[in-house]
Amino acid sequence: MFVYADNAATTSVSKAALDAMMPYLTELYGNPSSLYAFAQKATEAVANARKTVAELINAEPREIYFTSGGSEADNQAIVSAALAGKRKGKMHLISTKFEHHAVLHSLNRLQKDGFEVTLLDVHEDGVVRLEDVEAAIREDTALVTIMFANNEIGTVQPITEIGALCRSKGIPFHTDAVQAAGHMPIDVKAMNIDMLSMSGHKFHAPKGVGVLYAKRNMPLFNIIEGGAQERGKRAGTENVAGIVALAAALKESCENMEPNAAKMIAMRDKLFAELSKIPHSKINGSLEHHVPGTVNMCFEGIEGESLLLMLDSYGICASSGSACTSGSLDPSHVLLSLGLPHEVAHGSLRLSIGEYNNMDEIDHIIETVPKVVQYLRNMSPVWDELEKGERPHLI
Amino acid sequence: MFVYADNAATTSVSKAALDAMMPYLTELYGNPSSLYAFAQKATEAVANARKTVAELINAEPREIYFTSGGSEADNQAIVSAALAGKRKGKMHLISTKFEHHAVLHSLNRLQKDGFEVTLLDVHEDGVVRLEDVEAAIREDTALVTIMFANNEIGTVQPITEIGALCRSKGIPFHTDAVQAAGHMPIDVKAMNIDMLSMSGHKFHAPKGVGVLYAKRNMPLFNIIEGGAQERGKRAGTENVAGIVALAAALKESCENMEPNAAKMIAMRDKLFAELSKIPHSKINGSLEHHVPGTVNMCFEGIEGESLLLMLDSYGICASSGSACTSGSLDPSHVLLSLGLPHEVAHGSLRLSIGEYNNMDEIDHIIETVPKVVQYLRNMSPVWDELEKGERPHLI
Repeated sequence: MFVYADNAATTSVSKAALDAMMPYLTELYGNPSSLYAFAQKATEAVANARKTVAELINAEPREIYFTSGGSEADNQAIVSAALAGKRKGKMHLISTKFEHHAVLHSLNRLQKDGFEVTLLDVHEDGVVRLEDVEAAIREDTALVTIMFANNEIGTVQPITEIGALCRSKGIPFHTDAVQAAGHMPIDVKAMNIDMLSMSGHKFHAPKGVGVLYAKRNMPLFNIIEGGAQERGKRAGTENVAGIVALAAALKESCENMEPNAAKMIAMRDKLFAELSKIPHSKINGSLEHHVPGTVNMCFEGIEGESLLLMLDSYGICASSGSACTSGSLDPSHVLLSLGLPHEVAHGSLRLSIGEYNNMDEIDHIIETVPKVVQYLRNMSPVWDELEKGERPHLI
Repeated sequence: MFVYADNAATTSVSKAALDAMMPYLTELYGNPSSLYAFAQKATEAVANARKTVAELINAEPREIYFTSGGSEADNQAIVSAALAGKRKGKMHLISTKFEHHAVLHSLNRLQKDGFEVTLLDVHEDGVVRLEDVEAAIREDTALVTIMFANNEIGTVQPITEIGALCRSKGIPFHTDAVQAAGHMPIDVKAMNIDMLSMSGHKFHAPKGVGVLYAKRNMPLFNIIEGGAQERGKRAGTENVAGIVALAAALKESCENMEPNAAKMIAMRDKLFAELSKIPHSKINGSLEHHVPGTVNMCFEGIEGESLLLMLDSYGICASSGSACTSGSLDPSHVLLSLGLPHEVAHGSLRLSIGEYNNMDEIDHIIETVPKVVQYLRNMSPVWDELEKGERPHLI
């Protein structure tokens, strides 16, 4: 049995998205910047996609900028707020310890350029506290950027409360909503979000297209200079097919959000319930505020990478954390931010369920994971020491 | 009759490119950064595409970085060379007056950051002189960036000679080859090119994917920070389908370069010969060093935009210059750089022929353009004054 349980890494392209994009990969190939009627069909398609995306997050079409993906959107949002802050002498940026690297590395770069960065703790439950945000805010804070839902452990942050706080203090608020868009309701007005990033391929659009929402009074700084596309804020011929597909996929995901979530939550909760029975295992992150599809656990005495390779041999596609850093031997910065010891963080497993999964697949995972964990523990010298009491169990 | 004669703005996706990308838009949707076998099919596809592109320009696979397009590649190349130069106290950049805006606006930004920019004249023939490049080079020159072929007038620059000069002086040389890739032979080793930009949709790949070639000793600065994709130099989940399509399209274009060029040159030369018979018309740029497909002319006494709209009504898709600035009312900076007066530059027409065009279509253009030019002149008060001798003919 083949089970794709890595929907937080990427998703398949939905039929709706593929059908929407095909005309723009075939007969309607015009450049949206061209004047003639043939190309205006592409111009209109991009405009309609912009309108659709705007409506789905309660924004205005002119507040939607299409990018090459979530990383580009994160980079542009953060650099823009930082440079706008700098002009007013505001050189302080607030974020959290468990953001995606597109955020953390952008902040790191700005730190080298003289900005001061406060990275908030996310506590053991993987949720940032509103009072921590409030305490970190200073007169010279140029930006608060806190992710909507964490990509590795699935915990959802108090975005509405943080948005209200930032608005009351007049501080721009950006959220990396890559894991939330299409899976949870987003209302940029009600949530007082000034900037927001999305990535199409996390909700069944193809890879290579994303969205930066920026409230109309937010100054945007180009990270790609050139032509006048995207209201002069993002140069380069528009990825028309990708943009159209993104809008179609987001629309379908939002329209089916409730039944999809119910289905995914049932599968996720069964996974949590059954896999928790494995001794010396641990669920990472609070289940109280959680995206529908993500399960993150640690199993003591094993290496996450070995677990993944064995699950692969059983047809199960999973990850130990973010796909973007899967080449790294270091344990996940997200799990370390929860206070997990290195040894425990190394034995992590992320299963991310999508609406295309079914209970048979979940049952296959539930049968396989305990077997594989036991097999790996049997071969593990660390597990041997733990069992003999030569080193203490940490979980 | 419908005639698409704007291939310099964008091209249709070839069957080879579409066939190559479809599996990655459907069943093979894995994230190339994931470890399991299913995703490794995407990893391999990207690796193979990188190898193909490298071979086609005589580079090494590790010197190929996939981007979201030509503009991003131009931005990254220029910013990288500038920042590397800055570390050595080299703050001087050399380019030409008629580059694409992705280059000119990047340079403009750097100028605001304290760099000094020399923009070389391209003379009336649209060709930069090697001696002008040599004369501009200083001890503190950090980069020479000169386009391979101009996007509006199609003139080809002495890239081999400029490359040899820059190499002999130890100065990094970047070329925006967006209009040349797939249409003219490129050998980055023989031509001593250190960095080169390509855009897939100019050679029958889809929009939203490009290439930055950077010689392996060139320091690259990220403009998108985040995950470890593209050897850590360009974050964001890879546009797998787009990348695979780009490689397939470039391969097909390069394999058929000679017959395609012969076909396009025959069509282009017929256009030049016949349209030059229109009185008070002018061919822009030297025909001696020219890409196969591009025809750029000015017709006195008319507005380019009106000409385009009328040609559109006859089914002919053309442009007055770059699609990227088509919303602008200013005459083309490229035509002004050739020394054309504003009044003349306003009456420009770019026809860009591709290998999918045929002689019947060319004949339709040849029948239509003189008719439309005459019609517009009949309505033009400027033409009236020219004809009455109240103002002098400029061409």
